[in-house]
Amino acid sequence: MPDLAFTPAVGDHDFTAAQRELLTLAHTLGRDKFAARAAQWDEEASFPFANYEDLRAAGLLALCVPREHGGLGADYATYMMVAAEIGRFCGTTALTYNMHICSTLWTGVLADGIPMSEAQRAEHVGRRGLHFRRVVEDGAIYAQPFSEGSAAAAGRAPFGTTARKVEGGWLVNGRKIFASLSGAADYYGVLCTEDKGDEKPDARDTLYLAVPATSEGFAISGEWNPLGMRGTVSRNLTFKDVFVSDDEQLMPRGIYWKGAQTWPAMFFTLAPTYLGLANAAYDFTVRYLRGEVPGEPPVKRRMYPTKQVAVAQMRIQLEQMRSIFLRAVLEARPEPSKDARMRLYAAQYTVMEGANDIARLAIRTCGGQSMMKHLPLERIYRDSRCGSLMLPWTAELVLDRMGREALYEPGEKDE
Amino acid sequence: MPDLAFTPAVGDHDFTAAQRELLTLAHTLGRDKFAARAAQWDEEASFPFANYEDLRAAGLLALCVPREHGGLGADYATYMMVAAEIGRFCGTTALTYNMHICSTLWTGVLADGIPMSEAQRAEHVGRRGLHFRRVVEDGAIYAQPFSEGSAAAAGRAPFGTTARKVEGGWLVNGRKIFASLSGAADYYGVLCTEDKGDEKPDARDTLYLAVPATSEGFAISGEWNPLGMRGTVSRNLTFKDVFVSDDEQLMPRGIYWKGAQTWPAMFFTLAPTYLGLANAAYDFTVRYLRGEVPGEPPVKRRMYPTKQVAVAQMRIQLEQMRSIFLRAVLEARPEPSKDARMRLYAAQYTVMEGANDIARLAIRTCGGQSMMKHLPLERIYRDSRCGSLMLPWTAELVLDRMGREALYEPGEKDE
Amino acid sequence: MPDLAFTPAVGDHDFTAAQRELLTLAHTLGRDKFAARAAQWDEEASFPFANYEDLRAAGLLALCVPREHGGLGADYATYMMVAAEIGRFCGTTALTYNMHICSTLWTGVLADGIPMSEAQRAEHVGRRGLHFRRVVEDGAIYAQPFSEGSAAAAGRAPFGTTARKVEGGWLVNGRKIFASLSGAADYYGVLCTEDKGDEKPDARDTLYLAVPATSEGFAISGEWNPLGMRGTVSRNLTFKDVFVSDDEQLMPRGIYWKGAQTWPAMFFTLAPTYLGLANAAYDFTVRYLRGEVPGEPPVKRRMYPTKQVAVAQMRIQLEQMRSIFLRAVLEARPEPSKDARMRLYAAQYTVMEGANDIARLAIRTCGGQSMMKHLPLERIYRDSRCGSLMLPWTAELVLDRMGREALYEPGEKDE
Amino acid sequence: MPDLAFTPAVGDHDFTAAQRELLTLAHTLGRDKFAARAAQWDEEASFPFANYEDLRAAGLLALCVPREHGGLGADYATYMMVAAEIGRFCGTTALTYNMHICSTLWTGVLADGIPMSEAQRAEHVGRRGLHFRRVVEDGAIYAQPFSEGSAAAAGRAPFGTTARKVEGGWLVNGRKIFASLSGAADYYGVLCTEDKGDEKPDARDTLYLAVPATSEGFAISGEWNPLGMRGTVSRNLTFKDVFVSDDEQLMPRGIYWKGAQTWPAMFFTLAPTYLGLANAAYDFTVRYLRGEVPGEPPVKRRMYPTKQVAVAQMRIQLEQMRSIFLRAVLEARPEPSKDARMRLYAAQYTVMEGANDIARLAIRTCGGQSMMKHLPLERIYRDSRCGSLMLPWTAELVLDRMGREALYEPGEKDE
Repeated sequence: MPDLAFTPAVGDHDFTAAQRELLTLAHTLGRDKFAARAAQWDEEASFPFANYEDLRAAGLLALCVPREHGGLGADYATYMMVAAEIGRFCGTTALTYNMHICSTLWTGVLADGIPMSEAQRAEHVGRRGLHFRRVVEDGAIYAQPFSEGSAAAAGRAPFGTTARKVEGGWLVNGRKIFASLSGAADYYGVLCTEDKGDEKPDARDTLYLAVPATSEGFAISGEWNPLGMRGTVSRNLTFKDVFVSDDEQLMPRGIYWKGAQTWPAMFFTLAPTYLGLANAAYDFTVRYLRGEVPGEPPVKRRMYPTKQVAVAQMRIQLEQMRSIFLRAVLEARPEPSKDARMRLYAAQYTVMEGANDIARLAIRTCGGQSMMKHLPLERIYRDSRCGSLMLPWTAELVLDRMGREALYEPGEKDE
Repeated sequence: MPDLAFTPAVGDHDFTAAQRELLTLAHTLGRDKFAARAAQWDEEASFPFANYEDLRAAGLLALCVPREHGGLGADYATYMMVAAEIGRFCGTTALTYNMHICSTLWTGVLADGIPMSEAQRAEHVGRRGLHFRRVVEDGAIYAQPFSEGSAAAAGRAPFGTTARKVEGGWLVNGRKIFASLSGAADYYGVLCTEDKGDEKPDARDTLYLAVPATSEGFAISGEWNPLGMRGTVSRNLTFKDVFVSDDEQLMPRGIYWKGAQTWPAMFFTLAPTYLGLANAAYDFTVRYLRGEVPGEPPVKRRMYPTKQVAVAQMRIQLEQMRSIFLRAVLEARPEPSKDARMRLYAAQYTVMEGANDIARLAIRTCGGQSMMKHLPLERIYRDSRCGSLMLPWTAELVLDRMGREALYEPGEKDE
Repeated sequence: MPDLAFTPAVGDHDFTAAQRELLTLAHTLGRDKFAARAAQWDEEASFPFANYEDLRAAGLLALCVPREHGGLGADYATYMMVAAEIGRFCGTTALTYNMHICSTLWTGVLADGIPMSEAQRAEHVGRRGLHFRRVVEDGAIYAQPFSEGSAAAAGRAPFGTTARKVEGGWLVNGRKIFASLSGAADYYGVLCTEDKGDEKPDARDTLYLAVPATSEGFAISGEWNPLGMRGTVSRNLTFKDVFVSDDEQLMPRGIYWKGAQTWPAMFFTLAPTYLGLANAAYDFTVRYLRGEVPGEPPVKRRMYPTKQVAVAQMRIQLEQMRSIFLRAVLEARPEPSKDARMRLYAAQYTVMEGANDIARLAIRTCGGQSMMKHLPLERIYRDSRCGSLMLPWTAELVLDRMGREALYEPGEKDE
Repeated sequence: MPDLAFTPAVGDHDFTAAQRELLTLAHTLGRDKFAARAAQWDEEASFPFANYEDLRAAGLLALCVPREHGGLGADYATYMMVAAEIGRFCGTTALTYNMHICSTLWTGVLADGIPMSEAQRAEHVGRRGLHFRRVVEDGAIYAQPFSEGSAAAAGRAPFGTTARKVEGGWLVNGRKIFASLSGAADYYGVLCTEDKGDEKPDARDTLYLAVPATSEGFAISGEWNPLGMRGTVSRNLTFKDVFVSDDEQLMPRGIYWKGAQTWPAMFFTLAPTYLGLANAAYDFTVRYLRGEVPGEPPVKRRMYPTKQVAVAQMRIQLEQMRSIFLRAVLEARPEPSKDARMRLYAAQYTVMEGANDIARLAIRTCGGQSMMKHLPLERIYRDSRCGSLMLPWTAELVLDRMGREALYEPGEKDE
């Protein structure tokens, strides 16, 4: 089996043939197409439609759609590697791609690992075909709005967006913020709480419904002018008595909540984008110091010891990130051991904070020119700060969670 | 003597009455005028002309012009405190203000501490009056272009911009990059090497000449679209046989070089801007977590222990920065002891890197909202990365210099 | 006024003549006497009696006894500088010296800044003469046991050691742990809670009583075999119905508690020892890399860039420590502003953690030889870890306190 | 296949059955035997003979002796996991065990991956049987002295210890320092340079010879009183015309040097000890804060948020260390890719510095009691500092190497 012609974002590894093929595809698209366009989405804060055309043409919108549904059938680990590779060339594309892929990953591979009753399984298998078809046949894009500005996205309260059962479907009401792909997605996979009419919203009743972008009562509002990840166009969504049919239910009742308990790795899918960014910052730095950045004067700056030490430190941290990331995605499974779950949290923190550490050191090491917008480093520096802020596993919430879980076994309390 | 009504950027201290007055003036201008305008210069990458109107009206353009020349007569330490105060509200204003002030500080207080022959002293005292008059009477703005893209700005080679003596003045040729206030300054205080016709440029022959913005042969070129400090409009300057009269010589021959040896603190004047930014990031964080940012919902987030720990860490670092900064500016003098010189380098590194440390932790602590451009934190995060890149005392060059000077006494070598 | 012949632990500064003299005295004693003995106290975990002989002979046991009582009348800042100087040569001596000095500092200069009624003032002035006399005339050593293993030493509960008023004096009962100078002190200045017989111990009723080492019912127990600061011999003390006469009351009723509120700087006196250690680690590293450590081969290792960078980093951190330390001790006063109080906490954290940072980097930079016990670095590495653990201002408690005080003004609460 | 009953030092993983068995053996020995004895070797700076009795009895001295030679046939990765497990309970045992095991690993599994001529292979296969027999049948212990105090151990110069070919064997002359197991080993596997009589020592001529402890002309000298890893008894060895027979040649001429080029992972074998220490520090902290350390009062301290945050940080770093370590040992092979080699260096740095980071934070988090010698943490703190100092891959040399190799491809130079 031929080796890869490049070192991928996760580093050299004994990849499967399928992984090598997909990594090569992602790498080539990223390098030849996405990299040059990244500045544009950033400047305009516009969605990377051109990249999605390429992803669609390459079949990558259906990366995680099971083969029997016409997709590429990539598993969790393969997706994570591919996503990291895309993140090297365009953070905004990798991050929005994640929202889309998750809607197929959760309903596909991940759902397969969630215990369901026979009836639930039958219902799920029946329904997901519709969504997979839309992706495979129509090239549909799914978004996955999550945050609401309350404690829900942190996993500490039920979502405030609600769905009430009505004849033939659901009535959705509520509001999402930081909704990536707003205005670009064909469907919004909305997490909401079933409104059972009893005023006691319960996180166990979380529903996962696809809201078509054309639905009546659905609206997008608000400004979007952030520091980084600007092409995600993460504006606000409002749902006012939006009716969606039963078929839009992406998971059976109660299964999202069970999935969140069963498959903690489902919340780790924002990380590959940032591993990609860290690689990009490191790669740029090496190329810049070697005088090999196209369009820049071929001045070598690699002979200064302080720069060499800085590059060594960047590489050490990058290898830490790659290793914990790769281990976490390879050992991801339903009901992981406590040890593996703690490692998953640690991987999230390591990648999100590490990307920012490396990006800022890269700017310092490359110097003044690297602050200019015709070079990618300043964008990476801005994008890289966003990862630690993303719910439900912000850097702070990970620290909270790890401290508590390390010191308290389930159910333990102090008087 | 009444206390200050606020804690200044350097922290509480037994200020003189004049310092208290100037700090209050700077604080008030910054808070009431500059803060609200900062987003505009940043967005447009345009020079803060409106702020300069205010500075001019308040007499602050002449802050360091000696009293006998009609200025406010502030000394080095006072200037540094005032500059930090301005930096809290607008980094770009503080940083450009520094370039302007330095032209009066170097020729004023600092020059007074540089040994000169009687003839040199007479020449200098004679000439500087012209420049002081321009500032005091005409409200002129002086820039101070430094970098050239070679090793000169790092202090390791003579400047490549040259001045050749001609009848009644000098002919200037060359190029400056990262020239803050380009297009906004009335005069450009250019550091260049005297061209003695012998092909052996020598850093001892550095000249410091004021080039009027209207000079023939002087041109501004290049894009300016950087990560941060965007209102400095630091484009390129080219000098093609630019004639300036003898009166434009800001220091006698050989004195700039002597000054650079004598007064290392003259290279520390970029730091207050960044101390101001660090204060701004900290202050915003406290206010945000207390639910007290005007225009934002009054939601309190201060009760989360991880946020409290983060604020404590930010404050610890801020106090380190304030203390080493204040000590460095209070002990600044000609011919400092080696101990004081090492401390000055350490202060530069501490403030420049610290501002970025605090800014990025502030974003992480305040969370997703703080990335949006209607709030100041994301701009501070961008501005804060620039300090460590600024010549001649970049973070890397400071490390180099300190390592060497700590381990080698002057003149020592290893075989 | 002649300059110092050395750079003191706090760095060059415009010292008073008295400070210069005392610093020279401390430096000379430390360099010529204490340094060579330090390994012995460490190995044996024995009290540095020989050093106390020297301190006594030099008058330094009475450093903070007011001049009118025959002492040297040093103020708070002067003491702190002198203590740091001693800490450069022997951590254990500086740390125990602090306990002794505090008993004269609290009852002397600090008490002068605590508001008292006229009667209290009279009582205090009357009684302290006795203790000062013991120090000045008899060369007595006072210890200051503090920790009890409860929340008291952290300032969160009343001390469990109690004193009940009886005819002509007090009956003391209880237990102290980590009691430095156990077995070496002539008097133990014990903090205890007045037992008013009503079962409601109140921190406001803290008493500060001197217990003579010869008292009946007083006993020393327990092992003392710690990582570092071994010469402090900090064993356990038990008090069983120990009677002390009224004269042994070191402060009037209620004044210790008021003092702790009024004079937060009284809890910062453990820091100079660690500033001294940091200086020692840095100094050793420079000397070692220059091949100038007496008794070691004159091999130069200073030319390696990674070593130069490490020394630069050590020096930067040392200067941060020195600057925040010096500012904190110079601005120490009763009822400091909130800004100054936060800085004091920050100084404590900065010095305690910084000493350990520098020590461990020093070992890494000097390499394998520096781990050996015939050189001081490994002892400094061990000693340096102790500072962050010392109550009431451990590194953790400082973080707690700063986070809370930064975000809550006195009296504020969240629902 | 049954899961492990404990989480091993490298974390949960899909181990082979043999690995599970060996990990259980090492864990049980460590927990039940080595842990309790660790304080003794540390206090006395004495070799852990009792532990070696247990290792011998368990067959673990022959862990890496190929099965066909009567050993357990463990491969590189398995050894590394087992060593980390031992390191959790006694650093000194794990570190000395490494020296012993390496003599069987280099001549066994590693040598199998080094290209040799047929004659060399035949010679090697013939000779190693003798050494394996000594280990398997006699329970012999091999040491592996390396450092000489010159640049040789850093890989920058030939070893100064020499061997001259004589009839039937070699004459060895020279000196080794930091020679672990001095006085305890039966054989010393000495790296030396062949003395060809031409005064041009060449690292390619490195020989690897076993010197029996009983050899004439062999002597042990010097003090051994270090900070940590005290039971390694790493004194000096001198060789004065020591004759060893041809059979003592552990590798054919030129093969050690080739091996060092081919198998960089052979220099990573000091790391597992320190991964073990990091686990030990973390485990102790969790147990201590939960009030579960045997012999200590069952006081819970886990409810303090600053302690929870500290534990989270320790765990994050531990997971980084575990992941990069595990990846490095699993991908170790002859002629690794450049990417894998850089990762190996990064793993070394990460583990060595990380162990010290975690140990010192553990002490700070557990507080004053944890400094006492009846608890293991203070020993771990001391031991943990040694890893970064160990040649040939000290923390500094790794930084050097990585900076250079990242920026220069083989053979590249700047003018």
